[in-house]
Amino acid sequence: MDRDQCLALDAEDPLRAFRDEFVLPDGVIYLVGNSLGALPRRTAERVRRTVEDEWGRHLVGGWNHSGWYDQPLTTGDRLAPLIGAGPGQVVVGNTTSIAVFQAVAAALKLRPERRVIVSDARNFPTDHYMVQGLAGLLGGPERGYEVRDLAEGRFDDAAVVLLSEVDYRTGARQDVPAVTAAAHAAGALIVWDLCHSVGAMEVDVSAADFAVGCTYKYLNAGPGAPAFLYVNPRHQAAAENVLSGWHGHAEPFAFEPGFRPAEGVRRFAVSTPHVLSFAALEAALDIWERVPMPLVRAKSMALTALFVDLVGDRLELASPADPAARGSQVSLRHPDGYPVMRALIDHGVHGDFRAPDILRFGFAPLYIRYADVHDAATTLLEVLDKELWKDGQYATRLAVT
Amino acid sequence: MDRDQCLALDAEDPLRAFRDEFVLPDGVIYLVGNSLGALPRRTAERVRRTVEDEWGRHLVGGWNHSGWYDQPLTTGDRLAPLIGAGPGQVVVGNTTSIAVFQAVAAALKLRPERRVIVSDARNFPTDHYMVQGLAGLLGGPERGYEVRDLAEGRFDDAAVVLLSEVDYRTGARQDVPAVTAAAHAAGALIVWDLCHSVGAMEVDVSAADFAVGCTYKYLNAGPGAPAFLYVNPRHQAAAENVLSGWHGHAEPFAFEPGFRPAEGVRRFAVSTPHVLSFAALEAALDIWERVPMPLVRAKSMALTALFVDLVGDRLELASPADPAARGSQVSLRHPDGYPVMRALIDHGVHGDFRAPDILRFGFAPLYIRYADVHDAATTLLEVLDKELWKDGQYATRLAVT
Repeated sequence: MDRDQCLALDAEDPLRAFRDEFVLPDGVIYLVGNSLGALPRRTAERVRRTVEDEWGRHLVGGWNHSGWYDQPLTTGDRLAPLIGAGPGQVVVGNTTSIAVFQAVAAALKLRPERRVIVSDARNFPTDHYMVQGLAGLLGGPERGYEVRDLAEGRFDDAAVVLLSEVDYRTGARQDVPAVTAAAHAAGALIVWDLCHSVGAMEVDVSAADFAVGCTYKYLNAGPGAPAFLYVNPRHQAAAENVLSGWHGHAEPFAFEPGFRPAEGVRRFAVSTPHVLSFAALEAALDIWERVPMPLVRAKSMALTALFVDLVGDRLELASPADPAARGSQVSLRHPDGYPVMRALIDHGVHGDFRAPDILRFGFAPLYIRYADVHDAATTLLEVLDKELWKDGQYATRLAVT
Repeated sequence: MDRDQCLALDAEDPLRAFRDEFVLPDGVIYLVGNSLGALPRRTAERVRRTVEDEWGRHLVGGWNHSGWYDQPLTTGDRLAPLIGAGPGQVVVGNTTSIAVFQAVAAALKLRPERRVIVSDARNFPTDHYMVQGLAGLLGGPERGYEVRDLAEGRFDDAAVVLLSEVDYRTGARQDVPAVTAAAHAAGALIVWDLCHSVGAMEVDVSAADFAVGCTYKYLNAGPGAPAFLYVNPRHQAAAENVLSGWHGHAEPFAFEPGFRPAEGVRRFAVSTPHVLSFAALEAALDIWERVPMPLVRAKSMALTALFVDLVGDRLELASPADPAARGSQVSLRHPDGYPVMRALIDHGVHGDFRAPDILRFGFAPLYIRYADVHDAATTLLEVLDKELWKDGQYATRLAVT
């Protein structure tokens, strides 16, 4: 496909108007929206309002007047449709790592006779680290708490399985329905990590017991934007939040000496929400409420397929060949991946590198065009042709400048 | 003391210039800086810079270019002098509740032969709730994990004591040196909660094993600003962060499957910092770097003493009578405290109410003047004279409007 054909596709793209809602620096093709989404144009004013009007004028009154207190739930309800959840099922706040800790600890409490946590080695490492910390806190192997790799395929004594829907390195979609069914058949619960799927594809979270995810990738809510935690309604009455802070209390302003959990998903709120970071999430959700997710997924698959086609066999594809088996990202392998990516960034195409040899390219369908994909692939091939990194020369130049 | 004398004190106040650095709404005397500090004038621009320049222009490059990645440590180092700590001893992020969980869990791991957590009933309730959640996670009383009230005065089998330096309700300073010495003599560790002391008085944290606190009260870092966690250097090599997220890893970007703690206090960083909220903290610290804390404490004591003198015996003093025994707040008791406070706020004097009968007035020395104290006390006495709340009439009126 040549550039004119790509431009024609862009002209008839039903999502094309969304690109205008983002700030995109001149001369940059930004293919890192799978790591940190671009800035929506409306965000600066929304954050300014929170700082100057809500905080500056209403001061502590902002907790009620500006809805800060309920923001973990109100933004949760706004985000819920993006993962196939309903109102009262999602709470927003803290970070994905902390949400993983809450979800896995809650699952362990719901399966008190079991002590094994199954975690997929392809999960983003912080997921592993958090369950390792939790297992260690509970006494570790001496007390039977073990973190087992999903690849062993053994769930019979597992309390909970932790699985990312999309692999952060390769972009491969895991077979979530099959793993979920197997976990449930074995009496285990399952926690889905949706960091790399929310905003990139339709998600139906209803089969999961818990789910977590971040809002700063495809959702464009900004660096360090708050995470979300989904609690399936069937667990809400029994599930415990071990990070039982006052915002999860039934009556936080009664200042009772003992923790008494709030009804519903609110009990998983921990403490004072990061209000400025929530403001940027609110601005991002103003966009997402208008986004037809089936069109996002269709365009996403078309963009990744186009990129793979244009790159051809010049680099080994680390992602699945079938677009339907990928998230919204393409990963390529190159033994000099780091200097190749540095050279590519110098030429205006921004992807990222994940050790040892993965070049990652994320395609956020709201602001990446077919022509961008064409230009990115062309530039990548040009950079490869120049072989700047040959014999480590480019790496050396980078190291000394 | 009459109003002219107060104006004279303001004219010679060595801290008077700091008031100009804050946005304070017309017609409001804001005595809730002990709950949410006022907005510094410089903050809006600092946050705008993070949103539009750092995020908008540098996108994911902001993690390095704009120093986001190291912000938990760089802001920790900037904040450290306010609590008598040195570089490499404080990490910023998350919330006070989560920092309490980290600190108490780390202390339990350092005292594996002990299972009792002593918590002061006067601590802010979320501190209790978090240790209750932790004790419950570890198996609760069945496994010997118990949360005991400090009032029992028994530390012999305690792993850790959790103590607030200043009582959030009454403003009373606890005898931190005595409790710390007693805890240490009994072989227990101690965690200080500095939420109501940092920015209100000089703090020397060096006797504590761990300390936590928030930055949104006297430090003026904004609603939901990140919390801080101090780890005494003598524990840094051995202390474990049970919330072992990737930002506490020795090499987070090596994406290793196993958690390997970073050297020093960085291991207590958990995961992606809330960058927008950090921007407001940076702006606040720009002010605090120029603030002489002994003058803050001196003015604080003078302001609270003046308020107590002017109110006289019209209301029961819930705070200690000696200014040196208080934080920067005065608490008064009234059986109709809630409607009294509502009436007072209607008259432009903003304090807050804490059940069952406490009227709280916080005096942030950077922006509260002696004349403000005079006017606040005068208005309070006028409101009391009008007896709007008599027989519950004011309460009733509020309830129906």
